Amino acid sequence: MTDLPTFGAGIWHFATYKDRYATDGYGEPVGLLEQIDRAGAVGELSVVDLNWPFVGFEGTTEDVRSALTRNGLRAVAITPEIYTREFMKGSLTNPDPAVRTKALEMLHEATAVAQELGCDYVKLWFGQDGWDYPFQVSYRDVWQQAVHGLRELVGAHPDMRFVIEYKPREPRNKIIFPSAARTLLAIQEVGHDNLGVLLDFGHSLYGLETPADAAQLCIDHGRLFAIDVNDNYRGWDDDMVVGSVHLVETFEFFHVLRRNGWDGVWQLDQFPFREDPVQAARQAVDFLKALHRALDALDEEALAAAQTSHDALAAQRLVQKVLLTSMVEAG
Amino acid sequence: MTDLPTFGAGIWHFATYKDRYATDGYGEPVGLLEQIDRAGAVGELSVVDLNWPFVGFEGTTEDVRSALTRNGLRAVAITPEIYTREFMKGSLTNPDPAVRTKALEMLHEATAVAQELGCDYVKLWFGQDGWDYPFQVSYRDVWQQAVHGLRELVGAHPDMRFVIEYKPREPRNKIIFPSAARTLLAIQEVGHDNLGVLLDFGHSLYGLETPADAAQLCIDHGRLFAIDVNDNYRGWDDDMVVGSVHLVETFEFFHVLRRNGWDGVWQLDQFPFREDPVQAARQAVDFLKALHRALDALDEEALAAAQTSHDALAAQRLVQKVLLTSMVEAG
Amino acid sequence: MTDLPTFGAGIWHFATYKDRYATDGYGEPVGLLEQIDRAGAVGELSVVDLNWPFVGFEGTTEDVRSALTRNGLRAVAITPEIYTREFMKGSLTNPDPAVRTKALEMLHEATAVAQELGCDYVKLWFGQDGWDYPFQVSYRDVWQQAVHGLRELVGAHPDMRFVIEYKPREPRNKIIFPSAARTLLAIQEVGHDNLGVLLDFGHSLYGLETPADAAQLCIDHGRLFAIDVNDNYRGWDDDMVVGSVHLVETFEFFHVLRRNGWDGVWQLDQFPFREDPVQAARQAVDFLKALHRALDALDEEALAAAQTSHDALAAQRLVQKVLLTSMVEAG
Amino acid sequence: MTDLPTFGAGIWHFATYKDRYATDGYGEPVGLLEQIDRAGAVGELSVVDLNWPFVGFEGTTEDVRSALTRNGLRAVAITPEIYTREFMKGSLTNPDPAVRTKALEMLHEATAVAQELGCDYVKLWFGQDGWDYPFQVSYRDVWQQAVHGLRELVGAHPDMRFVIEYKPREPRNKIIFPSAARTLLAIQEVGHDNLGVLLDFGHSLYGLETPADAAQLCIDHGRLFAIDVNDNYRGWDDDMVVGSVHLVETFEFFHVLRRNGWDGVWQLDQFPFREDPVQAARQAVDFLKALHRALDALDEEALAAAQTSHDALAAQRLVQKVLLTSMVEAG
Repeated sequence: MTDLPTFGAGIWHFATYKDRYATDGYGEPVGLLEQIDRAGAVGELSVVDLNWPFVGFEGTTEDVRSALTRNGLRAVAITPEIYTREFMKGSLTNPDPAVRTKALEMLHEATAVAQELGCDYVKLWFGQDGWDYPFQVSYRDVWQQAVHGLRELVGAHPDMRFVIEYKPREPRNKIIFPSAARTLLAIQEVGHDNLGVLLDFGHSLYGLETPADAAQLCIDHGRLFAIDVNDNYRGWDDDMVVGSVHLVETFEFFHVLRRNGWDGVWQLDQFPFREDPVQAARQAVDFLKALHRALDALDEEALAAAQTSHDALAAQRLVQKVLLTSMVEAG
Repeated sequence: MTDLPTFGAGIWHFATYKDRYATDGYGEPVGLLEQIDRAGAVGELSVVDLNWPFVGFEGTTEDVRSALTRNGLRAVAITPEIYTREFMKGSLTNPDPAVRTKALEMLHEATAVAQELGCDYVKLWFGQDGWDYPFQVSYRDVWQQAVHGLRELVGAHPDMRFVIEYKPREPRNKIIFPSAARTLLAIQEVGHDNLGVLLDFGHSLYGLETPADAAQLCIDHGRLFAIDVNDNYRGWDDDMVVGSVHLVETFEFFHVLRRNGWDGVWQLDQFPFREDPVQAARQAVDFLKALHRALDALDEEALAAAQTSHDALAAQRLVQKVLLTSMVEAG
Repeated sequence: MTDLPTFGAGIWHFATYKDRYATDGYGEPVGLLEQIDRAGAVGELSVVDLNWPFVGFEGTTEDVRSALTRNGLRAVAITPEIYTREFMKGSLTNPDPAVRTKALEMLHEATAVAQELGCDYVKLWFGQDGWDYPFQVSYRDVWQQAVHGLRELVGAHPDMRFVIEYKPREPRNKIIFPSAARTLLAIQEVGHDNLGVLLDFGHSLYGLETPADAAQLCIDHGRLFAIDVNDNYRGWDDDMVVGSVHLVETFEFFHVLRRNGWDGVWQLDQFPFREDPVQAARQAVDFLKALHRALDALDEEALAAAQTSHDALAAQRLVQKVLLTSMVEAG
Repeated sequence: MTDLPTFGAGIWHFATYKDRYATDGYGEPVGLLEQIDRAGAVGELSVVDLNWPFVGFEGTTEDVRSALTRNGLRAVAITPEIYTREFMKGSLTNPDPAVRTKALEMLHEATAVAQELGCDYVKLWFGQDGWDYPFQVSYRDVWQQAVHGLRELVGAHPDMRFVIEYKPREPRNKIIFPSAARTLLAIQEVGHDNLGVLLDFGHSLYGLETPADAAQLCIDHGRLFAIDVNDNYRGWDDDMVVGSVHLVETFEFFHVLRRNGWDGVWQLDQFPFREDPVQAARQAVDFLKALHRALDALDEEALAAAQTSHDALAAQRLVQKVLLTSMVEAG
C-alpha cells in the first residue's frame, strides 16, 4: 500500500453553528481551544485550518500553538473572517472604501498570524463579495476592486501563499468567484505566483462542475494549492460528511489528484450541524482511507485504455471493482 | 378599479438575521415592539404574522396588542418557533418522545396566544422535521408521528385554523412537507377541517412546482388558507423582495387567486438581509399594486379563450400588454 | 442468500435514439424483434415493457410473443406511445377534443394488446400532458380532463392494472403528474383500485424527492405497482446506467422495498445513447445483484435502532460496511 | 429614441424538431428555403444564422443567397453540424482520430461557405464534445484536443471570425465549454484574435451565471463576438420565447451591452416546438423593442449612483419604472 495522505480539517468542523432559524445555535458555543482538542480527539488529523480572529478566545497565538502541539496538530492555514457583519456587503468589493481598507488591514494581520504559526497559506473566502439582486452592482467595478485588492494583498507578502476558495453562492446570492475557471481568470489578472485556488469538492459539485475536471484544470494552470472535501445533494453547499452521497465522483476527484502526483492535504470542510463532530471526522477519514486503498487497487492501465476510447462502461467496471470492495480490510 | 387586497407581512421581515457565516448578525438585534413599529412605518400593511415566543421581549400579550393597535395592525397569525435549538432534530417528529411532547405543549400554548390576539390561524412550519442523510430515518415513522401530532393539535382546537407552510428544505436537507400535494395528503390523513395550507410562492417555485398550479390544487381541495410572497432564483429560498425576478409567474399566481375568488391577505415573507426592511416592504407592495391594476386590465375572456386552446403566445401577448404597462399610473 | 429478484427492462433500452441535435439518430434504427433479441442476449432479464404501437414492425402480436418466448422473456407491460407528434399538445388533456378521443381509443387498444400478451399492467406516461409557458393553460381544466380520461380508461378494464409513471418534465416543460404525492391525489380522485404508480428512481431523484421516501409513501397508499431504475445527475432525466452516481440512494431505495416486502420486478429504464445496450444492461444487473447481496448482509436490527434515534452516522457506518464490500464475491 | 438594433435569428427557429419521444417530429420537415421564407415573413429580421450542411436541400449556395435576398435577409453566420450521429462521441475531441480529422475538414468547408456568403462568423457549438459518465474520459486529453483542433482551425482562416457557443450540457451530460470563463481560458490558450464567444442568454442563466455579468466579462476580454437570446426555467435549455420568464434579467443583459457600446445583432435562438415560429419570432422582437425603449427611458445616472452604493432597492425602482411602462406605446 502507498503511504497514506495527510488528513486535515477546518477547525470550524468542531464548532457549533447558527443559521437564520436556529438563531440560538445548534449547541452551546465551543471555544477555539476546545475545538482544537476535539480535532485532536479524532486521532487521524495532522493539520487544521484556523479561522481568525480567534473567536471567543482571549489568549495569545502562542497559546493556540501550544494547544495544537499537544494535540499533534499544525495550523496549515488561516481563514480570515471577512464575512461577518462588518463585511456584509463585501470585503475587498465593499461599496464603502473605508470597509475595503478595513478588510485589507485585516487580511494583512491575518497573514502575519499565518506566518507566526508557520501556515502554508492564507485562505480567502469571499462569501459576502457579490450581489443579491439584478442591477445591484456594476459587474466591472466589483471585479476590478477584487483584482486590485488581491494584487495589493498578495503582492505585499511574496513569501506567503494565498488561495481563493470559490463557491457559486451563499451567503450572497451570487459570489464573484463562483467557479474554477473564473477564479483562474482573476488569478491571471492579479499576476502573482503566490495566489492559487482552494478547490472545495462540494462547491464544485454544486456549481455544475465535474470536480475532477476542475481539479485537472487548476493543476494544468499550476494553481491547485489546496482542496477541501465534503458532500451535498448538488443543489446547495450542504457540507455533509464526505462519502455520504457522491462516492464515485469523490473517488474520481482523488484519482485525478493522484494521477497528477498532487500530494497536498486531504482536508475536511464539513458542518456536522446535528452530529458529533469527532465521529463525523473519523467516519470521513475512514471513507477516505477506503478510497486510498481503492486507488492502490485500481487497474490504471486498463482505465487509461478505457478513457482513450471514452468507454464509460469499461471504466465503470474497473471503478466498481475497487470501490465496492474498498472496505473489505476495514470490514 | 377593484378594491385593493389586504396587505400583510411576517414580522420577521423587520428583524435582523444571522446565518452560519455572519454569526454576529446582519445588524443589531431588533426587539418585537420595534419590529412592529417598523411594520407600521411601511404605511401599507394591515396585518402581521408574529413569531412566538416573543423573543427579546419581557412584556405581556396585551403590550403586543397595544403596539399593533397604535400602528394600525392586527395579528393575523402566530408562528410558533418549533425550529430552534431544542427542536434541531425535529418537533412533532423528534426522535426523543420528550421533545415531541414539549413541541406539542408549545403548539398548544401558541394556539392560546393566537386566540387571545384574535388571529385567523396558527402557522406550522416544520423546518427541522425531516432528515439530512440517506438512511437516517424511517420515512414511515416520521410521517406517522407528524400525522398523529397534527391530529392531536388541531383536533384539540376546533375553533382555530392551522396551516402547514410547506418547503422543500432548509434548515433540514429534506423537510417532511416539501410540496403542496404531499401536504394535502397529510391533511387528508389528519382528517380535520381546520387544517390547511399556507402556500409560500418562493417555496413553490424553488420546489419545482408552478405556483399558480399549486394554488389551484389547494383551492380545489378547499385548503388554501393563506399565502406568502417573495422571490428567489429558483435554487434556494432566497426570500427576495417580491417582483425582483419572477414578474410573470407572480402575476400568474395572483391571477389564479382572483379567478377563484380567493380573497385572503397578500402577505410578504421577505428577508431583507442587507436592505432597509421598511423600504423593502413598501417596494414590494408597490409592485403588488401594479399587479392588482394589471389584473383589472387583463382581458379575461380573451385569456380564457387562449387557454382553452393552450395558445401560449396569445396568452403571453395579453399578459405583457397589461403587465408592461402596469406602472403607468405609478410612473 | 435470499432469492434474486426478477430483472426486467423497457424494450427501448435496446433501441437507438434521436434528440433535437442528432436528428439522424444515435445509430441505425433497430426493429422490435431485434430489440427483443438484444434483451434476450443480456442473459439476466426475465421480462420487458413494450412500447405500442410496435414501431417498424409489420407482424402480429403472436410474432412478438414468439420472439419473447425464444428469448426467455415475458411482456410485463405495454407502454402506449401517447407522446408522439399527434399528441404533442397532450393526450388525455389535449386542447382538441378529437385528439383526446383518439388518445383514449389508443389506450383502449393498447390495453387489449396487454391482455393478449398477458401483461401485468399498462403503463401510462403523460410526457406531453402539461404546459410549457406561464398562463398557457387553465390548471383546473387540464387536471379535470386527466382525471376524467383516466376514470374512463381504467374503469373500462377492471381486470387490468394501470400505472402512472410520474416525471417533473420533459418533453413538456411541466408535466401534470410530476411527483408521487401529486399522482396519488389523482389516483384518489379517479377512484379505482386498478390504478397505481410506477416510481422511476431517476424521475424521483431529479424531482427533488428522496426516492426511498416516495416509495414508502406509495406503498403506504397501497399503490406502488411497479418501479424503474436508472441514474442521473439530479438536474435532468439522464437515464444513465443504474449505479453510475447515486449508489447509496439506490441502495436505500431497494432497502425500503425489501423492508416492506415489496416483491415486484427490478426494472431498468436506461437510455444508453452512446453505449452498447446489452453491456449496459448486464452491468446494471451486476450492480443490482451487489445491492441484493448488501441487503442480505445489512444489520437490519442495528439500522432500525440507528433510525429510531435519527443517528445518521451510525446508519452510514452500517451501510458503507455492506455496500463497500458488496462486490467481493463478484471481484 | 435611439436607433433600433439589428434583429436576427438562427434559421432552425423556423424548422420543426424531434426529440427522444416525438421521434416522428413536431411537424412535417421544413426545407431550408421554406425556413428562410418563414424568417422573411416575420418582417423584423435582417440576418439569420444558417446550419450547414444545408439539410434537405439540393441546390447551390447561390440559391440560398437568392432566397435570403428576396426575403431581405443576410447570412450572419454558419453553424456547422458537428453534433449529428457521426460526431456523437465528439467532433474535435472524438476518441477516434479519423473522426477528429473529419470534423476539422467539415469545419474548414463550413468556413468556406461562410466566406462565400459573406458571413460575419462561423459558430462552433460543441454539444457532443464532453462526457456523460464519471471516469469516462481523461479531462486533460479532451481539453488539449479541443485547444489543438481550434488552433488549427482558426489559425488557418485569419480573415474569418469564429465563436464558441458555450453551454453547460445537452446533448452530452457535460460539455467541455460550459461557461464564459472556461471558454475564455480556452481562447487564451488557442492564442488567436479571431476566436471569441457567442453568449447565449439561456445557456448562461441555466449554467448558474448572471448573464449580464458574463457579458461584461467577455467584453472586458474583448471577446463578446455575438449573442443569442431566449428564455428558460433555469434548469434546462428550454429555448422559450424571449421575455417569457426572466424579464428583469433579460433587460439587465441588454443594459450591460448598451453601457459598453456593444452594437452587435440581437439574435433569437428559440425552439418553438409547439408554437407558430413566425409569431414566436415576432412576439420576441416586440418584447425586445420594449426593452430597447426601456433602455432609452432608464435614468442611467441614478442607476449608476445606486450601483455605486450597491443599493438594490433603488436600482429596482428605476428598473421597474421603465420596464413596467415599456409597452405603453405598443399598447
